[in-house]
Amino acid sequence: MKAGYIQFKPELKNIEANLGTMKHLIKKADAELLILPELANTGYTFSAKEELAGMAEPFDSSPTLDSLQKLAREKSCGLVVGFAESSGDSIFNSAALLRPDGSRELYRKNHLFGAENLFFKPGDIPFQVYDFNGVKLGIIVCFDWFFPESIRVLALQGAQIICHPVNFILPWGQRAMVIRCLENRVFAITANRYGTESFGDRSFTFTGASQITAPDGSVLASAPGEGDHIAVVDIDPTVASDKHINRFNDLFECRRTEFYGAITDSP
Amino acid sequence: MKAGYIQFKPELKNIEANLGTMKHLIKKADAELLILPELANTGYTFSAKEELAGMAEPFDSSPTLDSLQKLAREKSCGLVVGFAESSGDSIFNSAALLRPDGSRELYRKNHLFGAENLFFKPGDIPFQVYDFNGVKLGIIVCFDWFFPESIRVLALQGAQIICHPVNFILPWGQRAMVIRCLENRVFAITANRYGTESFGDRSFTFTGASQITAPDGSVLASAPGEGDHIAVVDIDPTVASDKHINRFNDLFECRRTEFYGAITDSP
Repeated sequence: MKAGYIQFKPELKNIEANLGTMKHLIKKADAELLILPELANTGYTFSAKEELAGMAEPFDSSPTLDSLQKLAREKSCGLVVGFAESSGDSIFNSAALLRPDGSRELYRKNHLFGAENLFFKPGDIPFQVYDFNGVKLGIIVCFDWFFPESIRVLALQGAQIICHPVNFILPWGQRAMVIRCLENRVFAITANRYGTESFGDRSFTFTGASQITAPDGSVLASAPGEGDHIAVVDIDPTVASDKHINRFNDLFECRRTEFYGAITDSP
Repeated sequence: MKAGYIQFKPELKNIEANLGTMKHLIKKADAELLILPELANTGYTFSAKEELAGMAEPFDSSPTLDSLQKLAREKSCGLVVGFAESSGDSIFNSAALLRPDGSRELYRKNHLFGAENLFFKPGDIPFQVYDFNGVKLGIIVCFDWFFPESIRVLALQGAQIICHPVNFILPWGQRAMVIRCLENRVFAITANRYGTESFGDRSFTFTGASQITAPDGSVLASAPGEGDHIAVVDIDPTVASDKHINRFNDLFECRRTEFYGAITDSP
């Protein structure tokens, strides 16, 4: 499967411009699956929930998603894109899988970072695996990486490629994804944004360096820290279904689940 | 707490020499807690279980542990040391915590690596936290790091310092421990060996580079890839009890345990 990322710099509160940039870059890519950053439609540095509410779109009738999915159909290319989602009175930091056949899937970020907690509701959808052209995709958003349980749960369900829209500001994400892919023997496509956004006393510089990581921990593609960037690699997803790291160790068979109980205990 | 590692090169099948080297190095260190490598008494590259059986020692009456614990008492210094343990007909790849007061604790490696599966029985003791001078210690051995559940379970039980005897041959362990400490906000002391051991067609080169890692992912001490090396740092273990990484995110409070169920499902 030819799969990759699109790195770009969303303009804060300019959905029309961001949609235009995304479509322009998607058209340039030769791929079956492309991952775009977190909150790609709106930017990141909101000042108030009310401000965000005016830009968030419903999953089922989002003009932004509709427009992107039309392009997905034209290009026969699946898209995973982060967007601000409205649902009743709630706003979620979500990601959508848009298939060329018109079907779509929804994930809502389960682990919110920092001041996101002021604007967004924590996700309420379990981590789950989606079929796309016979490949099993898992979706997490940005800070979900910090919790090893996120990708573990997806990998245990058979995820072969982790689709990972991000707005990384911490310095460890890219290095951590090497360990995450290694410990789960999965591919991951981390699509980051770049640039600095400021509002009032809040200012974030996003780290770019979008990355495609393999089950053996090797980095198959890595973007510069700044600038629009597209990378597409040919992934054999079946590699991720063999959990052996040597003839004695199948990473999933030698897990000692009888000793892991504390992980699911309520806090 | 002044805590650190002792990196050295065990001689294969020479318990007397290895005990001598350990005691020599322990005497040179000014510390309250020292971690020594995995299988520090016997070396690593066995040819047969029978060969190993002749060297493994019972936890309760091990001449090697007895001798080390006598030194622990003289120096008022706790020791965590990897050793080949016999128990009935079974042999475990174990680690002992030896307190100066004469008490000791046992951990048996739960995730065996590669051909260790031919010689050792997988551990049968749950990950648990031990008190030492008011500090909460967790113990894992080498390849346990590969499974994020190991340190997670210990951290959830309140472990402040992860004691980590290793014989690293894979290239990722040291980098991975940065992520493990970060995701759990714990300290870790990884005591590695160095040198090459061969037997028949099996040959291993151990990577040295023992490491002390902090809850913020910083590396407090790092040994060279070769050579005996002692490092001791002054650790404030209470740092590991505050799981906040910013004012919105307590890493343990914002875990979404309701979505982690697959982790404890039987394979």
